[in-house]
Amino acid sequence: MQPIQSLGYNVYFEENLESLLPFIEARGYSQILVLVDRNTNDNCLPVLQNAIPDLIHYDIIEVDPGEENKNIDFCIGVWKTMLDFGADRKALMINLGGGVVTDMGGFAASTFKRGIDFIQIPTTLLSQVDASVGGKTGIDLDNVKNIIGTFTQPQAVFISTEFLKTLDERQLVAGFAEIIKHGLIQDKDLYETCKSVDINNVPADLIYKSVQIKNNVITQDPTEKGLRKILNFGHTIGHAIEGYSLYNDANPLLHGEAIAIGMICEAWMSYKFTGLSEESLNDITNTFLSKYPQYVYSAEFYDSFLELMKNDKKNEDNKIGFALLKEIGDCTYNVYIDEQDIKSALDYYIEAAQLYYKL
Amino acid sequence: MQPIQSLGYNVYFEENLESLLPFIEARGYSQILVLVDRNTNDNCLPVLQNAIPDLIHYDIIEVDPGEENKNIDFCIGVWKTMLDFGADRKALMINLGGGVVTDMGGFAASTFKRGIDFIQIPTTLLSQVDASVGGKTGIDLDNVKNIIGTFTQPQAVFISTEFLKTLDERQLVAGFAEIIKHGLIQDKDLYETCKSVDINNVPADLIYKSVQIKNNVITQDPTEKGLRKILNFGHTIGHAIEGYSLYNDANPLLHGEAIAIGMICEAWMSYKFTGLSEESLNDITNTFLSKYPQYVYSAEFYDSFLELMKNDKKNEDNKIGFALLKEIGDCTYNVYIDEQDIKSALDYYIEAAQLYYKL
Ligand SMILES: NC(=O)c1ccc[n+]([C@@H]2O[C@H](COP(=O)([O-])OP(=O)(O)OC[C@H]3O[C@@H](n4cnc5c(N)ncnc54)[C@H](O)[C@@H]3O)[C@@H](O)[C@H]2O)c1
Ligand SMILES: NC(=O)c1ccc[n+]([C@@H]2O[C@H](COP(=O)([O-])OP(=O)(O)OC[C@H]3O[C@@H](n4cnc5c(N)ncnc54)[C@H](O)[C@@H]3O)[C@@H](O)[C@H]2O)c1
Ligand SMILES: [Zn+2]
Ligand SMILES: [Zn+2]
Repeated sequence: MQPIQSLGYNVYFEENLESLLPFIEARGYSQILVLVDRNTNDNCLPVLQNAIPDLIHYDIIEVDPGEENKNIDFCIGVWKTMLDFGADRKALMINLGGGVVTDMGGFAASTFKRGIDFIQIPTTLLSQVDASVGGKTGIDLDNVKNIIGTFTQPQAVFISTEFLKTLDERQLVAGFAEIIKHGLIQDKDLYETCKSVDINNVPADLIYKSVQIKNNVITQDPTEKGLRKILNFGHTIGHAIEGYSLYNDANPLLHGEAIAIGMICEAWMSYKFTGLSEESLNDITNTFLSKYPQYVYSAEFYDSFLELMKNDKKNEDNKIGFALLKEIGDCTYNVYIDEQDIKSALDYYIEAAQLYYKL
Repeated sequence: MQPIQSLGYNVYFEENLESLLPFIEARGYSQILVLVDRNTNDNCLPVLQNAIPDLIHYDIIEVDPGEENKNIDFCIGVWKTMLDFGADRKALMINLGGGVVTDMGGFAASTFKRGIDFIQIPTTLLSQVDASVGGKTGIDLDNVKNIIGTFTQPQAVFISTEFLKTLDERQLVAGFAEIIKHGLIQDKDLYETCKSVDINNVPADLIYKSVQIKNNVITQDPTEKGLRKILNFGHTIGHAIEGYSLYNDANPLLHGEAIAIGMICEAWMSYKFTGLSEESLNDITNTFLSKYPQYVYSAEFYDSFLELMKNDKKNEDNKIGFALLKEIGDCTYNVYIDEQDIKSALDYYIEAAQLYYKL
């Protein structure tokens, strides 16, 4: 597979990261730092070690895994460790992990000595198909997600399905929702393929197509003026449900699980307002319900969902805008929906899921 | 005076910030935040208040003054206050203060929601002539200066000599060293004018010329590949003396005071190695000695000075490179000087100062 060209850098698809060594050697870095979390240290570092032989020295920086550690305190820890290792402006940072590691490592690198080079090696399905292009780095502050960050492009991204072999099935399924999303918004064939894929064995070319779609969108709209908003399909409602679940459930929804629900709700809106056929709505609904666990919320929480949607950084002037499907593979954006219809969309998921699970 | 065009933005020279209001109004910001420290809140905010009438609402964020507060803890405080004020991506941040406020405020703005617009209003002579162009933002970490930061250009810079009226004389004199530096490296006339200026009343056109010189250099070399290094004239030795003084003196040298000494030492190196005439060396030496207080260090500290120089981020591969004068108004860079000659340069300052103060 040819590398995908993004904004000034390549995304390589290679089982064994074959191009990594020549890439590094050609650039004469003074030093290499590898950021991992405890899980990617155990599961993913061996693949990297095989790709970079012993003759290249690198230092490891390890953080605790999990979104709750994607914060300024851990980031300060990363910066201080970079200082301790004596990193200068010609050092390279390699971020080896899921979106938590690539987002925080990207931010740490982009601000250390006003910016050093970094390479992203995403090791979860979600981060491979979503965090790998777009140049967003970031950390959370006071539980507000990604509130501090930069737009900084990495020098390269390496994607290997090898890493997915050690990933939890739940994580795989959650990440898979973003691939389905890419199909829904731009590529009907990809969507159709998704319906029958074995998620424990996602083929590399599906990831490739998915990254290609996101990359096409962001390179057409690098400054987030318009088109990029289609990438938010399912996310306006999905984020609200995700945020709600985080504070109220002992075992909260993963991001991908929440946006799967969001996509069902927003598919209903698409059916009501932007011309999606009833047949497509049913097809989308069944696809998600067949892959994702049922989640139950009560109508008494709708107002807090709406509050969360209004706080979402994607909204301006207090209106709630949505990206909605005209048909499968074609998405439009800046569709403003009123509160009553948002509540009906939330009802739709609950009813559809009840019906599905009763069958 | 015409605004100076820097990298995508203007530097306005206006006593009363006349262009600020139309500038803001034309851009439809959702909200305005003004960052000050306690001193600029008292002394500088009134000027800003006159320039922006009451109909434009803005919120104030105040930090404690002083370099010791240009750190991540205060920066987190600024971010959290921005969050509390509900700032969105269309908010504008106005940084009103010396280099501490403009550096930290620029960093906070450039990383909040991955970057919001900011305007710099430098209120010290140093920050007007030095921090106003170049796009460097930053904070200190673990006492390492400016180790965390970004390269981000403001939307505009406003310079008013009105602010200088409340500034300590010591701060004025220290900042003036950077104007002399700009003359020495690029403009003999400016240097000659500096010799007879009343520092308590620095004319706006001297600041203008000084900013113009720095701006020409940085726009010719935006990525710090080469030419920009001439701006470090006096700074390699100056930084080492500044750092040493910070840890050892009850009342440490200000940056400008330290680089005045550095420029004397590096003028001596210029005389020895890059063709500066003996007459010019004496002239430069006397200019600085007549304006700046004597500082005494002993030869037993030379090795720690050298250590500090090697740690300085401008050095690569452990060599110590200098920017040196070929003559007054003409500076070259990447001149590598060995340790013995650096020590002789340090001796030169001590002897010259002794001689000068004995007279
Ligand atoms: N920058 C972007 O454009 C972008 C896009 C989407 C999501 N994100 C961010 O990504 C984060 C979520 O990413 P994520 O789902 O990858 O979370 P994550 O990084 O927390 O990874 C999930 C879990 O899997 C573990 N893990 C990672 N790789 C593994 C492997 N190969 N084998 C076994 N365990 C492994 C991790 O240690 C963690 O416990 C969020 O913070 C989100 O904001 C960023
Ligand atoms: N970004 C750049 O390119 C750049 C260039 C040079 C220096 N700097 C940074 O600038 C900082 C030093 O700047 P500085 O010398 O302006 O320090 P500063 O901001 O600490 O100001 C010095 C003192 O003067 C006070 N003050 C400021 N304006 C005043 C006014 N008009 N009237 C009365 N008091 C006033 C401040 O409160 C402070 O106590 C350093 O941190 C340095 O790293 C940055
Ligand atoms: Zn997502
Ligand atoms: Zn300086």
